[in-house]
Amino acid sequence: MTDRNGAGGGPHVVILGAGFGGLEAAKTLGACGVRVTVIDRQNHHLFQPLLYQVATAALSAPHIAEPIRSILSRFPSVSVRMGEVERIDPEARRLHCADGAEISYDWLILATGAKTGYFGHDDWARVAPGLKTIEDARQIRTRVLMSFEHAERCEDPAERERLMTLAVIGGGPSGVELSGALAELSRFTLARDFRRIHPEAARILLVEAGPRLLSAFGEGSSDFARRRLERLGVKVLTGRSVEAITAESLTVGGETLPVGLVVWAAGVTGSPLARQLGEVDKAGRIAVTRRLEVVGQERVLALGDVARCEGEDGKPLPGLAQVAKQQGAHLGESLAQHLQTGAPLTEFHYRSKGNTAIVGRHAAVYETGKRALRGWGAWLLWAVVHVYLLVGFQNRIAVSIQWLWLYLTYQSGARLISMAEIGPAEVKESLGEPVEEGPARA
Amino acid sequence: MTDRNGAGGGPHVVILGAGFGGLEAAKTLGACGVRVTVIDRQNHHLFQPLLYQVATAALSAPHIAEPIRSILSRFPSVSVRMGEVERIDPEARRLHCADGAEISYDWLILATGAKTGYFGHDDWARVAPGLKTIEDARQIRTRVLMSFEHAERCEDPAERERLMTLAVIGGGPSGVELSGALAELSRFTLARDFRRIHPEAARILLVEAGPRLLSAFGEGSSDFARRRLERLGVKVLTGRSVEAITAESLTVGGETLPVGLVVWAAGVTGSPLARQLGEVDKAGRIAVTRRLEVVGQERVLALGDVARCEGEDGKPLPGLAQVAKQQGAHLGESLAQHLQTGAPLTEFHYRSKGNTAIVGRHAAVYETGKRALRGWGAWLLWAVVHVYLLVGFQNRIAVSIQWLWLYLTYQSGARLISMAEIGPAEVKESLGEPVEEGPARA
Repeated sequence: MTDRNGAGGGPHVVILGAGFGGLEAAKTLGACGVRVTVIDRQNHHLFQPLLYQVATAALSAPHIAEPIRSILSRFPSVSVRMGEVERIDPEARRLHCADGAEISYDWLILATGAKTGYFGHDDWARVAPGLKTIEDARQIRTRVLMSFEHAERCEDPAERERLMTLAVIGGGPSGVELSGALAELSRFTLARDFRRIHPEAARILLVEAGPRLLSAFGEGSSDFARRRLERLGVKVLTGRSVEAITAESLTVGGETLPVGLVVWAAGVTGSPLARQLGEVDKAGRIAVTRRLEVVGQERVLALGDVARCEGEDGKPLPGLAQVAKQQGAHLGESLAQHLQTGAPLTEFHYRSKGNTAIVGRHAAVYETGKRALRGWGAWLLWAVVHVYLLVGFQNRIAVSIQWLWLYLTYQSGARLISMAEIGPAEVKESLGEPVEEGPARA
Repeated sequence: MTDRNGAGGGPHVVILGAGFGGLEAAKTLGACGVRVTVIDRQNHHLFQPLLYQVATAALSAPHIAEPIRSILSRFPSVSVRMGEVERIDPEARRLHCADGAEISYDWLILATGAKTGYFGHDDWARVAPGLKTIEDARQIRTRVLMSFEHAERCEDPAERERLMTLAVIGGGPSGVELSGALAELSRFTLARDFRRIHPEAARILLVEAGPRLLSAFGEGSSDFARRRLERLGVKVLTGRSVEAITAESLTVGGETLPVGLVVWAAGVTGSPLARQLGEVDKAGRIAVTRRLEVVGQERVLALGDVARCEGEDGKPLPGLAQVAKQQGAHLGESLAQHLQTGAPLTEFHYRSKGNTAIVGRHAAVYETGKRALRGWGAWLLWAVVHVYLLVGFQNRIAVSIQWLWLYLTYQSGARLISMAEIGPAEVKESLGEPVEEGPARA
């Protein structure tokens, strides 16, 4: 069965993935009338930089997600297909989908991003969620809130302490943001809600294998982040590697600690589809030229977190949202030109707009090559930029209001527990929840 | 293990359920300094009148849910416990919880409401969700949106038509509201988003066993509702009973129709805990006196949908939110007086504020004993009242904005599909989704 795109003839570009990179490419190509099919496993585009706020009950998932169809509906030449590609056949220029469909392409853009990587310890995935999807974020939120609920009913002081110990693995921006937000959640938002436990006494651990936090930033920013987190009550453990993780414990630097939850923010690896197109590096990325062509393939391009693209300094570009966006916009133009005039594809030049990381409720670090800004000014800049970048006007209003409310009152409207989100059986047991077989209770 | 409530001595009132009734009682008793423990299986209070909007992607779940702890945190004598009571022992005045805890009470208020009732056909529950919880609403929403997604990729015209046929069972206010909202979703919100299917061509069926819709209202309102729904494209089938339901078909009035989804809005039955306190009626409700005491028990009270309480006319009071709220407030006062002064419990008198039902995007019916209002005026009244009644100031703002946006643009910000919400295996199969064992993919 071949896919029909009602927009008529012309070369057919298929884009796999509607993240930052894929979406920019789709919009740019669509604006030029190029026939495009976007395929994604989800129906929504996710604004990942704010996912940690869903995980810490500061925002609701719908605020940071926009239906792909809405975003692309104004481009008549662009179709959206919700589905999963299992196999790429570059010889026949055909894609084989999980539901049995086959889709032919003239040009393929791989923009499937990265998934959580556990450095070979894939068994840890079951009990230590990453933070890449809405399901991840909701599972983390549910487990955090349930840990406090269970601690409230618990009679055993040791168990109570375990439940109120939350660990985050990974000292990069994700881990720093997440641990800071968890500290705020327990110290402020939940503080008055319990009668037997004191949420402010929760222990938040941030574990980093390297010598300092935010290793991609300068030392000044690393120190600033560490001090701020420690002031918020986060215990920062650097120079320690994780050795084992279970639903109830964490072994780090030879010591086994009882914990209620471990969140993995320590690594990502390129989407598995990359391997079907050639050799991937240690981070699971496929090599592309400066023109974003996949090395060793014809008419296959790649961008974003799944691609290893060299920057001006010869080093691979970082896996940042702004890199993917710029690549998507560039590739869209470059390919549209090529399809319409035959001009060769052009090289991509990344223009960094600086790096940010949030450290608690009203502080951030912001660095460009030359400047560093820390504290409240950086946070305000971050907030404004991120609201601006959010897709969907309604989302921008909603998030602005929710942040204003949270800032003024410490109260969050996003603290829903849904037991359907809690995770596998051993997690339920560790939270003292009865584990039954059969369909979920109404 | 007994539960300790840090607030000190005095009689201990335990309230099971934090719905409208339980919450009102807790707030009233708490304001009088009575020692209360509220036990609920969920962490949030749910504003059920708007649940159908979550199911039809017009609102997000967090907008209509408020953490119970937040609502009650300002009453120091009120504790909240998230948990499930398995057994009530009225002799010993003790409750046995699913997690093994035992809780003693001096007074017990049963306010556990109702769950979806299938008139003995409990096997239908698996494939035809009711609309009582957030998980129900999300499952319905996910299945509606997935049906359209699957139809878009589908090559078989008969299968496509099946997927775009959605049935609602039950012609009371819930069914009327739901079918109207489903018609709006397909006709307006989703209309421009697909390239191969035409969502406006979706068939929405509303099936009612009795002779007319809205049987608790007057005939004028019934006719108005029917005409409005038919104008929106809903096919109304009255005088037909459901005989069978599967993941792919509905048998009604002897005819088997291929359908993509069946939603059950035809009946509720009192929560199973009621049976532990005495005989229940056909609707699963336990009999209470006019003073809301459970007949045949001492120091056990009940209110809301789980209780059968006679009104002034000798007929049982309807299972409406306003009944539960008024009972909760009354019982709170009555019991507080009794505990503090020894005065006997007083009788409850229900003052109806009228009945409403929404029929499509800007029409409603509103009836009191004397007056009936239909159309846009009734809808505006309904909207204002429901925003006012929503718990949580932030929710009121958020819902007002979301409705305004929806009204002006037809665009909804609540259309997230999360495959974790989709339901059992046969549902996945009917939507052409691969069914795998093992943990959910990231």
